[in-house]
Amino acid sequence: MRNIKLTIEYDGKRYLGWQRLGDNDKTIQEKVEGVIKLLTSEDIEIVGSGRTDAGTHARGQVANFKTTHDMPLAEMQQFFNRYLPQDIVVNQIEEVPDRFHARYHAKGKQYSYYVWNDLIPTVFERSRSFHYPQTLDLEKMQTAADQLIGTHDFIGFSALKKSKKSTTRTIESLTITQEGQMIHFTFKGNGFLHKMVRIITGTLLAIGSGELDEGIIQHVLTEKVRQAAGETVPAHGLFLDEVDY
Amino acid sequence: MRNIKLTIEYDGKRYLGWQRLGDNDKTIQEKVEGVIKLLTSEDIEIVGSGRTDAGTHARGQVANFKTTHDMPLAEMQQFFNRYLPQDIVVNQIEEVPDRFHARYHAKGKQYSYYVWNDLIPTVFERSRSFHYPQTLDLEKMQTAADQLIGTHDFIGFSALKKSKKSTTRTIESLTITQEGQMIHFTFKGNGFLHKMVRIITGTLLAIGSGELDEGIIQHVLTEKVRQAAGETVPAHGLFLDEVDY
Repeated sequence: MRNIKLTIEYDGKRYLGWQRLGDNDKTIQEKVEGVIKLLTSEDIEIVGSGRTDAGTHARGQVANFKTTHDMPLAEMQQFFNRYLPQDIVVNQIEEVPDRFHARYHAKGKQYSYYVWNDLIPTVFERSRSFHYPQTLDLEKMQTAADQLIGTHDFIGFSALKKSKKSTTRTIESLTITQEGQMIHFTFKGNGFLHKMVRIITGTLLAIGSGELDEGIIQHVLTEKVRQAAGETVPAHGLFLDEVDY
Repeated sequence: MRNIKLTIEYDGKRYLGWQRLGDNDKTIQEKVEGVIKLLTSEDIEIVGSGRTDAGTHARGQVANFKTTHDMPLAEMQQFFNRYLPQDIVVNQIEEVPDRFHARYHAKGKQYSYYVWNDLIPTVFERSRSFHYPQTLDLEKMQTAADQLIGTHDFIGFSALKKSKKSTTRTIESLTITQEGQMIHFTFKGNGFLHKMVRIITGTLLAIGSGELDEGIIQHVLTEKVRQAAGETVPAHGLFLDEVDY
């Protein structure tokens, strides 16, 4: 049995996210599994590193599946890219040890969030960034972001109400850079709770525009109250950049 | 009477090009005129610097229109960007002398063409670049491109069969640069014939991949035979960058 690891790039716009929901064909997972079925004539389940929300993009989602099919890897990659829709591409393909599991073995992830910060909207980046016209104090935002670095219970910065599983995560780095009108948030950590990147970004924007005070970060971490944090910014500005193993 | 000059950015994907064709609402010109009508309640014709083909993008198309409406410019720009579809944005607005005419007074134009040169297609640049997987010799392409610089009859590099008007144009510069897998052709000149940028790009790609010989450039310039040149590359890799006055 071969264990095949795929690194997948996708434009999330048309999809309800990575994770298969039913038989409605509107998820990335189903599209990839559909091509695997075409290749192997078998119903094989693919394991992703984790879900991505509806509308979220990926530059480096990782997934694996097992098959006895003997097609060489380069040819298999071409097969995927021929039969997948244009908004999903297999960037890398490799054979990995049998025990490799894309979800269980993920050690860390990097996400990017893009904000177009100008009065005038952008045409060409409109489907991959959030248009936020208010003036922002980037230094203040970075100071606030620095308070999130480290290991914390992030439930207040998530869409989870309660959780039986641990909601403690470690953010290794959170940087905010600017190039022209585009502001780029880069999150690195060992894992992120549901909507955590988008809620943190929304909170940092509210701090940068003066709507919220910097103290809100400590407050949400300590009191664990989602309502005190900023808004959830839209999914179309979010990219899963890479998964580390 | 005010004469208003607009600099317009658009994603050409959904449109049949700049120029109004009828009442079908599928051109950029009609969308812009629709907003002018909303603003002034008048049927005002807008003059573009020139046509762009169906599917072609623009970063800096220029157009002007005349009106007695007295809305301040900044407010008028906001009005445009509120009521135009998301794939059309007015980047700049200014009041110009009465005699200014966006087409007659255009002195030069810059176009870009983007080619994604990799076996693996691109997700995020797929609607703004042409996927061309063959290996290319960029030096050879630049040497061939250099032969096009200057003033020539470019009818062999155009979609025109015959023309009563002059088909002589001047290309000031044509550079080919590469960043990662993306190859960027930049054309500057006093004007370009119908499909000229796309046919020249297709010819340079055929030279770069070895399908055509470098000598083809002189041959097409001298013999004026469209059939000898390369294919017309698709419109979705083409951008009108700017118009000079």
